[in-house]
Amino acid sequence: VLIGIGDDAAVVEPERNRVEVLSVDALVEGVHFDRAYVPPDAIGHRALAVNLSDLAAMGAEPRLALLSLVLPPALPVDEFDGIVTGFAALAAKYRVQLVGGNITRSPGPLMLDVTVIGTAKRRRTLTRSGARPGDDVYVSGTIGAAAAGLQRLKAGADWRVAADDPATHRFLRPDPRVRLGLLMGRNRAARACVDLSDGLADGVHRLAEASGVGVTIDAALLPVDPAARQWCEGNGMDATTEAIAAGDDYELLFAVKPRTSRRVAAAVHDSGVTLTRVGTCTVDRAVSIRGADGAANALPQGYSHFR
Amino acid sequence: VLIGIGDDAAVVEPERNRVEVLSVDALVEGVHFDRAYVPPDAIGHRALAVNLSDLAAMGAEPRLALLSLVLPPALPVDEFDGIVTGFAALAAKYRVQLVGGNITRSPGPLMLDVTVIGTAKRRRTLTRSGARPGDDVYVSGTIGAAAAGLQRLKAGADWRVAADDPATHRFLRPDPRVRLGLLMGRNRAARACVDLSDGLADGVHRLAEASGVGVTIDAALLPVDPAARQWCEGNGMDATTEAIAAGDDYELLFAVKPRTSRRVAAAVHDSGVTLTRVGTCTVDRAVSIRGADGAANALPQGYSHFR
Repeated sequence: VLIGIGDDAAVVEPERNRVEVLSVDALVEGVHFDRAYVPPDAIGHRALAVNLSDLAAMGAEPRLALLSLVLPPALPVDEFDGIVTGFAALAAKYRVQLVGGNITRSPGPLMLDVTVIGTAKRRRTLTRSGARPGDDVYVSGTIGAAAAGLQRLKAGADWRVAADDPATHRFLRPDPRVRLGLLMGRNRAARACVDLSDGLADGVHRLAEASGVGVTIDAALLPVDPAARQWCEGNGMDATTEAIAAGDDYELLFAVKPRTSRRVAAAVHDSGVTLTRVGTCTVDRAVSIRGADGAANALPQGYSHFR
Repeated sequence: VLIGIGDDAAVVEPERNRVEVLSVDALVEGVHFDRAYVPPDAIGHRALAVNLSDLAAMGAEPRLALLSLVLPPALPVDEFDGIVTGFAALAAKYRVQLVGGNITRSPGPLMLDVTVIGTAKRRRTLTRSGARPGDDVYVSGTIGAAAAGLQRLKAGADWRVAADDPATHRFLRPDPRVRLGLLMGRNRAARACVDLSDGLADGVHRLAEASGVGVTIDAALLPVDPAARQWCEGNGMDATTEAIAAGDDYELLFAVKPRTSRRVAAAVHDSGVTLTRVGTCTVDRAVSIRGADGAANALPQGYSHFR
């Protein structure tokens, strides 16, 4: 970074022999979060996390961020500080430098728009389109926890009390799989990747469509989060059904060439994030899920921001 | 551009031997424009123009853009199309590629957040901090027209009728000084530059502060736009006073080393944009304006988004 915030624009030196990976995502009050149950630092954290997850899904190392803040009329100063602190803490964790910023007052809802720029070696970027029939499909970590946490918060759990609850924590402060995505791209363990910001079902459909393959998911193999299972069972819901549609976990879905399990194991070891084989890519373009009875049904399209 | 819109993120190849220049700016309905008097294509145009002006002020060539659109509940499809068309037309004019996008529905006002990335040769970037005592201060084009156009629109002029009015046109579709900024950086005609998005007075203060110099502006030399003069005279206002505080013209202010007028002339010739000498940088840190009577008064701080 040659010139940071303070001039008309920032000036940075690109890394040699690297391509750049760019992503933008907005977080809007009343759409993606509610200030009633999301504390300020979690708002700042999530605004950056969703973007870091996009870079992770491309196998890129995050480097720079630009933050545009649109503030509602009566935002208390300590809330503003909290938002910036949450953003800055996650940025520091992944050594992301904030090089551009913009603050606008607005009559409308609080909004954070974040652009992130990362780098990767040219032939080590991951896309959604590289999956081939026969590839194994893996999902990182566990799914369903963030949605359960959100439901818990909406049901009235105070975040000051609920912060220790793993599901609530997962919704408020998701940890993007930066290192795992980078390793899976670098060591060519993965042929394709998509982030699961809008849920597993959505991600599987997008990867299948971009790659021109079908995917069969085995419901019994899905790594449903224990906290999600507990919440669902306590509220009369089927945890697997919920976890398939649930967004906000920011896990990654990979298509992996068969017989590359040693590379996968290395990426798991070095990142400390688990990977679970949950299905297979097929020649037949159908995207389906196989239940305990062995019958395959169409995988629902999943959560959509426009539903 | 190796991968454009459609995957989790875009992938681009950086230009060799160039630094990158980054800027982000948001345009919010009810703050920066009103849909009652700004047509959709002008909204899209202005959202990109304000950012291109920031790059121009750094002497950078624009290259990439990312657009985050936050749409209010009942935005008609043709208005959406108009916004995108206006943005795309200006992007095409300056060969800016849109590599990232994001659309969010929101309960609040229409908002466009744009990040632009440009390139420049390393030692040819312009900053606000390079001015030295004795430098001449130049302003590009003319000032005051956009503010007059905005007042005209607010006073009830229909943009469908008023589009031919030069002041109205200037507010709705400002032409960022992309080529001029690039040339003034490339041929080292300028030592410092700032864009005048928040008006001449604001820009002069910022350049003076960043460079550690004073500036004396000669009021009689200011290139007040004829259309602004006409509007002000017809409405009982002093055109020069208005033009000093007026924003939205997106002109550039340069500090130029004395005896480099040949380079300045070359940049003017090649860009087709005029430059007018309006003052001088001084050792004394005062920022002042000299009137017709020869007396120097403090230059007002100018327009502020937070006033």
